[in-house]
Amino acid sequence: MVGMVLMPEVVALGESLVQFNAVTDGPLRHVTYFEKHATGSEANVCVALVRLGVSCGLITRLGTDEFGLFIYDWLRGEGVDVGHIRFDPERPTGIYFVQRNYPIPGVSDVLYYRRGSAASALSPDDVDPDYVGGARVFHTTGITMAISDTARSAALKGLEIARGKGIITSFDVNYRKKLWANIDDAINVLSKALGFADVVFLDEDEANLLLGVSAVDDVFRELRSRFGINRVVLKLGIKGSMAYWEGRVIKVNAFRVPVKDPIGAGDAYAGVFLASILRGHDVESAMRRASAAAAMVVMVRGDEENLPREDDLRRFLDGYGRQVDLR
Amino acid sequence: MVGMVLMPEVVALGESLVQFNAVTDGPLRHVTYFEKHATGSEANVCVALVRLGVSCGLITRLGTDEFGLFIYDWLRGEGVDVGHIRFDPERPTGIYFVQRNYPIPGVSDVLYYRRGSAASALSPDDVDPDYVGGARVFHTTGITMAISDTARSAALKGLEIARGKGIITSFDVNYRKKLWANIDDAINVLSKALGFADVVFLDEDEANLLLGVSAVDDVFRELRSRFGINRVVLKLGIKGSMAYWEGRVIKVNAFRVPVKDPIGAGDAYAGVFLASILRGHDVESAMRRASAAAAMVVMVRGDEENLPREDDLRRFLDGYGRQVDLR
Amino acid sequence: MVGMVLMPEVVALGESLVQFNAVTDGPLRHVTYFEKHATGSEANVCVALVRLGVSCGLITRLGTDEFGLFIYDWLRGEGVDVGHIRFDPERPTGIYFVQRNYPIPGVSDVLYYRRGSAASALSPDDVDPDYVGGARVFHTTGITMAISDTARSAALKGLEIARGKGIITSFDVNYRKKLWANIDDAINVLSKALGFADVVFLDEDEANLLLGVSAVDDVFRELRSRFGINRVVLKLGIKGSMAYWEGRVIKVNAFRVPVKDPIGAGDAYAGVFLASILRGHDVESAMRRASAAAAMVVMVRGDEENLPREDDLRRFLDGYGRQVDLR
Amino acid sequence: MVGMVLMPEVVALGESLVQFNAVTDGPLRHVTYFEKHATGSEANVCVALVRLGVSCGLITRLGTDEFGLFIYDWLRGEGVDVGHIRFDPERPTGIYFVQRNYPIPGVSDVLYYRRGSAASALSPDDVDPDYVGGARVFHTTGITMAISDTARSAALKGLEIARGKGIITSFDVNYRKKLWANIDDAINVLSKALGFADVVFLDEDEANLLLGVSAVDDVFRELRSRFGINRVVLKLGIKGSMAYWEGRVIKVNAFRVPVKDPIGAGDAYAGVFLASILRGHDVESAMRRASAAAAMVVMVRGDEENLPREDDLRRFLDGYGRQVDLR
Amino acid sequence: MVGMVLMPEVVALGESLVQFNAVTDGPLRHVTYFEKHATGSEANVCVALVRLGVSCGLITRLGTDEFGLFIYDWLRGEGVDVGHIRFDPERPTGIYFVQRNYPIPGVSDVLYYRRGSAASALSPDDVDPDYVGGARVFHTTGITMAISDTARSAALKGLEIARGKGIITSFDVNYRKKLWANIDDAINVLSKALGFADVVFLDEDEANLLLGVSAVDDVFRELRSRFGINRVVLKLGIKGSMAYWEGRVIKVNAFRVPVKDPIGAGDAYAGVFLASILRGHDVESAMRRASAAAAMVVMVRGDEENLPREDDLRRFLDGYGRQVDLR
Amino acid sequence: MVGMVLMPEVVALGESLVQFNAVTDGPLRHVTYFEKHATGSEANVCVALVRLGVSCGLITRLGTDEFGLFIYDWLRGEGVDVGHIRFDPERPTGIYFVQRNYPIPGVSDVLYYRRGSAASALSPDDVDPDYVGGARVFHTTGITMAISDTARSAALKGLEIARGKGIITSFDVNYRKKLWANIDDAINVLSKALGFADVVFLDEDEANLLLGVSAVDDVFRELRSRFGINRVVLKLGIKGSMAYWEGRVIKVNAFRVPVKDPIGAGDAYAGVFLASILRGHDVESAMRRASAAAAMVVMVRGDEENLPREDDLRRFLDGYGRQVDLR
Repeated sequence: MVGMVLMPEVVALGESLVQFNAVTDGPLRHVTYFEKHATGSEANVCVALVRLGVSCGLITRLGTDEFGLFIYDWLRGEGVDVGHIRFDPERPTGIYFVQRNYPIPGVSDVLYYRRGSAASALSPDDVDPDYVGGARVFHTTGITMAISDTARSAALKGLEIARGKGIITSFDVNYRKKLWANIDDAINVLSKALGFADVVFLDEDEANLLLGVSAVDDVFRELRSRFGINRVVLKLGIKGSMAYWEGRVIKVNAFRVPVKDPIGAGDAYAGVFLASILRGHDVESAMRRASAAAAMVVMVRGDEENLPREDDLRRFLDGYGRQVDLR
Repeated sequence: MVGMVLMPEVVALGESLVQFNAVTDGPLRHVTYFEKHATGSEANVCVALVRLGVSCGLITRLGTDEFGLFIYDWLRGEGVDVGHIRFDPERPTGIYFVQRNYPIPGVSDVLYYRRGSAASALSPDDVDPDYVGGARVFHTTGITMAISDTARSAALKGLEIARGKGIITSFDVNYRKKLWANIDDAINVLSKALGFADVVFLDEDEANLLLGVSAVDDVFRELRSRFGINRVVLKLGIKGSMAYWEGRVIKVNAFRVPVKDPIGAGDAYAGVFLASILRGHDVESAMRRASAAAAMVVMVRGDEENLPREDDLRRFLDGYGRQVDLR
Repeated sequence: MVGMVLMPEVVALGESLVQFNAVTDGPLRHVTYFEKHATGSEANVCVALVRLGVSCGLITRLGTDEFGLFIYDWLRGEGVDVGHIRFDPERPTGIYFVQRNYPIPGVSDVLYYRRGSAASALSPDDVDPDYVGGARVFHTTGITMAISDTARSAALKGLEIARGKGIITSFDVNYRKKLWANIDDAINVLSKALGFADVVFLDEDEANLLLGVSAVDDVFRELRSRFGINRVVLKLGIKGSMAYWEGRVIKVNAFRVPVKDPIGAGDAYAGVFLASILRGHDVESAMRRASAAAAMVVMVRGDEENLPREDDLRRFLDGYGRQVDLR
Repeated sequence: MVGMVLMPEVVALGESLVQFNAVTDGPLRHVTYFEKHATGSEANVCVALVRLGVSCGLITRLGTDEFGLFIYDWLRGEGVDVGHIRFDPERPTGIYFVQRNYPIPGVSDVLYYRRGSAASALSPDDVDPDYVGGARVFHTTGITMAISDTARSAALKGLEIARGKGIITSFDVNYRKKLWANIDDAINVLSKALGFADVVFLDEDEANLLLGVSAVDDVFRELRSRFGINRVVLKLGIKGSMAYWEGRVIKVNAFRVPVKDPIGAGDAYAGVFLASILRGHDVESAMRRASAAAAMVVMVRGDEENLPREDDLRRFLDGYGRQVDLR
Repeated sequence: MVGMVLMPEVVALGESLVQFNAVTDGPLRHVTYFEKHATGSEANVCVALVRLGVSCGLITRLGTDEFGLFIYDWLRGEGVDVGHIRFDPERPTGIYFVQRNYPIPGVSDVLYYRRGSAASALSPDDVDPDYVGGARVFHTTGITMAISDTARSAALKGLEIARGKGIITSFDVNYRKKLWANIDDAINVLSKALGFADVVFLDEDEANLLLGVSAVDDVFRELRSRFGINRVVLKLGIKGSMAYWEGRVIKVNAFRVPVKDPIGAGDAYAGVFLASILRGHDVESAMRRASAAAAMVVMVRGDEENLPREDDLRRFLDGYGRQVDLR
Repeated sequence: MVGMVLMPEVVALGESLVQFNAVTDGPLRHVTYFEKHATGSEANVCVALVRLGVSCGLITRLGTDEFGLFIYDWLRGEGVDVGHIRFDPERPTGIYFVQRNYPIPGVSDVLYYRRGSAASALSPDDVDPDYVGGARVFHTTGITMAISDTARSAALKGLEIARGKGIITSFDVNYRKKLWANIDDAINVLSKALGFADVVFLDEDEANLLLGVSAVDDVFRELRSRFGINRVVLKLGIKGSMAYWEGRVIKVNAFRVPVKDPIGAGDAYAGVFLASILRGHDVESAMRRASAAAAMVVMVRGDEENLPREDDLRRFLDGYGRQVDLR
């Protein structure tokens, strides 16, 4: 390969999967055509970052199959550093299917084929301390904590290394019920991860699960008192998002757009929020930009295609509300 | 064939057609691709019933052509009893085309090719008294009354047999202007059918046509006084639906969803309403469930694909209103 | 060819292009399939007219390539008089791409490949005084003023001839920033054209550019005082449209519909407005009909497919607001 | 409308239908998407003629529905004279479905919905003697003889008028078994038509049906002796075609190309043959050109899209056999 | 459910999977759209049988997910007895992807996601001796032997029961390298199955693997001498197929058709061969019919759509070679 | 960006364009959908090289539009070094349309929109002597010589630098008639380029144009005697290819496959040939591999998708001829 790996500003760790998104709405039984997309929570965050000019590398494993090559080339094409991606000749690349607008309008359902995937074999060996140590932010999510024991260890190793070197740790709770054997496991493991997190993204349901509270003030208080976290973004769906940021509480409204597939909104938020903070935006601006990006990505199938470049993000923020009515 | 026909709980009688739904909106002149679906009012009701675990058989005729085979296999695949479907080697399976969102947004237009179809040759011979007599409900609609004299006779025979054996008769007025030679015929024939009906589904325009009134109380009163009907569902479009049920009046709101093709909503309503009543739901619950199903099916092309199974119906009812905004 | 050219009621002059409209939303990078449509501002107006029974001819040039033939056959098929279209063997037919709903929801972005197109070689030679002189209305737009010096001269020649013969001149400002070298040029040239215009269509941004004012009364006053124009339609987007018509001011609301691609709305408005005036509607009725047509065309990709015939237009006006809710 | 009807060189009479061609191969039961095309044997011939610069008008009837408008605009767009097409408000435009490559590879199967179509109401009233009399060639086919008694009378009237005025009559036997009540009728009627024909197109099966012989020499002899026809084209499928032309016998090979849908090949042959003869080609050249056109149209779905313009026809004839191998 | 299970003539046992077939050719990396089909070797055989009027039931397990429901409804729709299909709430329905024409033209590649599938949990408990015992033929394949230990035990139990009751056992070797841990295992297990087989289907590579010989006579001799099998069909690809049938050797040529996806050809062969034998055809006729069916199914994506009904099979056999050349 | 540019083994110079390939065959007038691909002769060669593990960088210019970004990300994703690609804010990315199988079956026609493209502004400034000097091979084509004077100067500068530093120069004549003002220009310029070439790729027509001979021996002799070139590959279409290589003459047959779009075959040949030579294959092996790659790419739309990786190339070479017949 041409090119020598330098140190990206952000290092993320987690599974990237191929998404097969239903071309038509309704139960998958009746869907005939599926559209292929590169996705995965941490991969989505990486692409969000590089689109805004913040370098990012992803630590993951892919199968040595066509779907693994697809993801690898996609991420490389986007400018994500792929130097720490390993190929596994024994295990397949994880995939999943997306059912849209059924049974609940505006909500997507997923059907995973990721058990035993290449990324489920992620292990602490995959985490190069120098690579993580050279970054400004290390990011992972609760999904990585759930897919296997070894992946979890890898994620925790990354968090520990980052903490140890004074690098900002970013953690998106991303509780996925289907990936956990039981709720208690999820609570224990995710709580452990919170213990290493500087910046946390979560929603009300996740707060309720992990902290037993969901009111905004309670959530912020619990995270602060129990985990010492004072940089939190609480996502409230169509009500917008709130942040507790080093003592301040900020609220930002959501942008209302026609939803084609809401999957990926949280990753767009996290990625654009981190990119904006790293590029010097204040928290409120970062939240507005993150909200805009979340709105942009839910308007299409696929998680990463609509992640904005700087110019597009500005045009959205300037133009929103001045367009022809969408009804 | 493997399997011996038992007695389904519901027997319906009417034409099942192949629908060719425009893939793109606008006048059909400019539509290049069409999508094939199995439909037909009574067939839709059958599928709604079997999806919710209520056995149903359809009495109809199909052409011995590929479209007839398509419908036959579709219904059999859904679990509808096809033992009383006959194939006609001389007449084609009826079909129609759907133009969507033009000229009126949110409204579909149809172009029929069903004159002289196999189902138009439905005749009283097709109605096996034992088959109808073994059911708990017999269902037909005003469409069957309109497509031919013999089909009308068959439907009336079914209603009479059912009445005679104390089986519930269910009638959906389903006035289709394009199928009637003139309005007077329609009024006469549909009124005759009302004379046999225990449960009636109609909307305000149909009430006005048949009863000369459209105000809710007037409609209920006229049906009661003139036809002795005391189980009526009056569909009010986006205003929801109202029922007069053995002395009680119940109102249920409609669920608001993005409409792709409103065709089939009434059938979904009727089928899920009947299934719910047969499974012991009270009228209000049956109406809520029926409204939900109607909302679900208008979100896609095709009438039957989105008819809910029990689990999906519950998820819709639980999740509706908590989803991301659809605007 | 079979047929002898008679005199159409309206003669329009300007470029007709092939539009490649993105099948999926989002940045064009990620769009794989594009759909071909015949468009162009003045061509759109022509089709709007002939659909409503008003004869119209288009003066333009096309490349002798497949895209030129496509447009020629399309316009001929619609019934537009193509007797004054010339083919240029040296220059290609102009084309452009449409990016939808990105970055701003509800707004489309265009990417032109029209520099040096066949129509950019339009010249005064293309304007046959007898042809223009035989019409009741001559129509052109600010786009034709922008694409080349020779096209501009042709448009000005058409306006002058029409003025000289007492034929109504209709001018849609249609300011397209991407087509002008600089704003001053645009202001000078468009102002010159206004000097020849009897009927003017413009929006608030265009008013501000050309007149330095955007408040409704100011716009009407300036056009009247500076250019002597007393038939003006000011388009206000979702707020509707206002007209100053020989001393009267009329306001009409916009029809709200789901927007797939807003391109072409202004042309639909202008064409249906002119057709309605020519067929004897009063200004308010013409505005309502024009607004309806604008709403109809934005519901699909392509500019001309949804332009209404008389019957469809009436059905829209009667049915609007009585349909199932579109949310 | 703009334009005054002049006299086209060729007048054809017959039904134009909308074809819904299966997007995927196999039995129609399993085909989900269908593609719309304008077709019809005599309409195909018209388009073949006008593409090569020979003016042609079609006498037919269309429904006043979207499909009728589609065909009308398509033919007008192609440059066919549509001045003698009438719209029938009562009857639908005829349509049919095409099943490709099943059960026999390389052969298409059709499913008609044309009984009672607008064109089946074609009658002698539709045949304007002045219109037919102004042409150089009158063309019709055995399909028109089959669809209804009135259509047959119209076709015979056209043939008689033409004969009477010394205009060349061209007749393509086009025996379609599905359209005839029985074979004897077909033989009687088609034989009657042969009595009026100057130029005849037929294939071996049709020869056998009508003449009881299929060997080339026998066919030519029988047509000559029994009907006095001495301009005959006998189509031999992949073996090519043979002509008996005023005493000479000419043979031309077929061009071998990958077949997507063979429907329309015969019409392409007839139309291009007639055009070539009218433009001064000798019979062998006309046959080669006709064979080329037949090969071109079978390579795509739809009958008319690939009908060649002069330049494309020449490029095919020059380039055939020098291309990359198609296997 | 309506209907009481009777005894099908054939009982098959094996996994049915959802196939996602690449819409465009080439490496899957570059394929954007995938088309869903119901497949699986033994399921394909079942559908081949029922299409020809031979009743068949499939013993299998499906996930309680949308893909499991899809297969269940598909098979039921085709008329396969689904009374012995069980749903597994813990395991997903197996799926796979098909890459076509790459890297080898005319050959498809598969990418499985079937490890741990519902059907891999098939066990001897699933095999009801009365069900198997009521049939005339029991059929399974080497795929079922490969997917798990419990599935293998189930298949062997089925074979043993059938042998014990004098029911014909049919075994298609179907060696799939990707499904076996190593070749020795495959040889041992498949040899064991051969010990129970009355009718065997295999190709030259499989013969070589299991018997160490591939010449036709050697294969027949080895199967006879080592396993006592005297009803064998040896598939030879484009060279056709040969049978050793109770002392006779018969050869039948393959039908040459354009290949879209060769997957499913072997199952079509086996199913139609068995159906034909059961319906009284002699071996050569059965082989010809089986070859025809194999040719029919490779012309489309999907394995079962093109399986012929009796009438279509006859038309293929009559029409083959008389069609327009496909080159 | 993450990564520091190293020296690629091959440096290529030329325009990369977006290709819009007709989804359906026939004249572009009648094509509705177009599929987007990244192409361009030298870019194709680069991707062919990197797929086989040979590093390659492309010197080019792209517009700062979505199509430029698309190409940039595509090439980066494939692993091509994009460090020497410049973006031009004033000029658009070049594009073209592909018409397939019409008018000549098996041949594609192109319609360019590349005049004034960003790459037409390529200039000697874009050619970094250190970058070229660090490579083992410098490659360009006659297309770059044709698109503009500055691009030609850039290509000549690259060739001169390479010659001066003893780097192998590779030149593909690639004569494109549509890009040259006249033939004499083409002959003069291309001859000049031949003066700098070590390795030359051309076909018989190009040989005839430049050398006045087309017989194999004559071509080799003329190139040797007039230009001192003794490494030549002469492409002979379906007859295969011949090389004169340092005194030896080698012939290799073409692989016959079904052709979907022959565009890109020559680039696949050149790229795989160069890669194979650089990786130590002898000339005959390199030719066989290059022929295989050319066959692979013509089986799909797009030029680069089917370029083989090492493993796929080997499978093709092993499997070719053993597959199911394609007829």
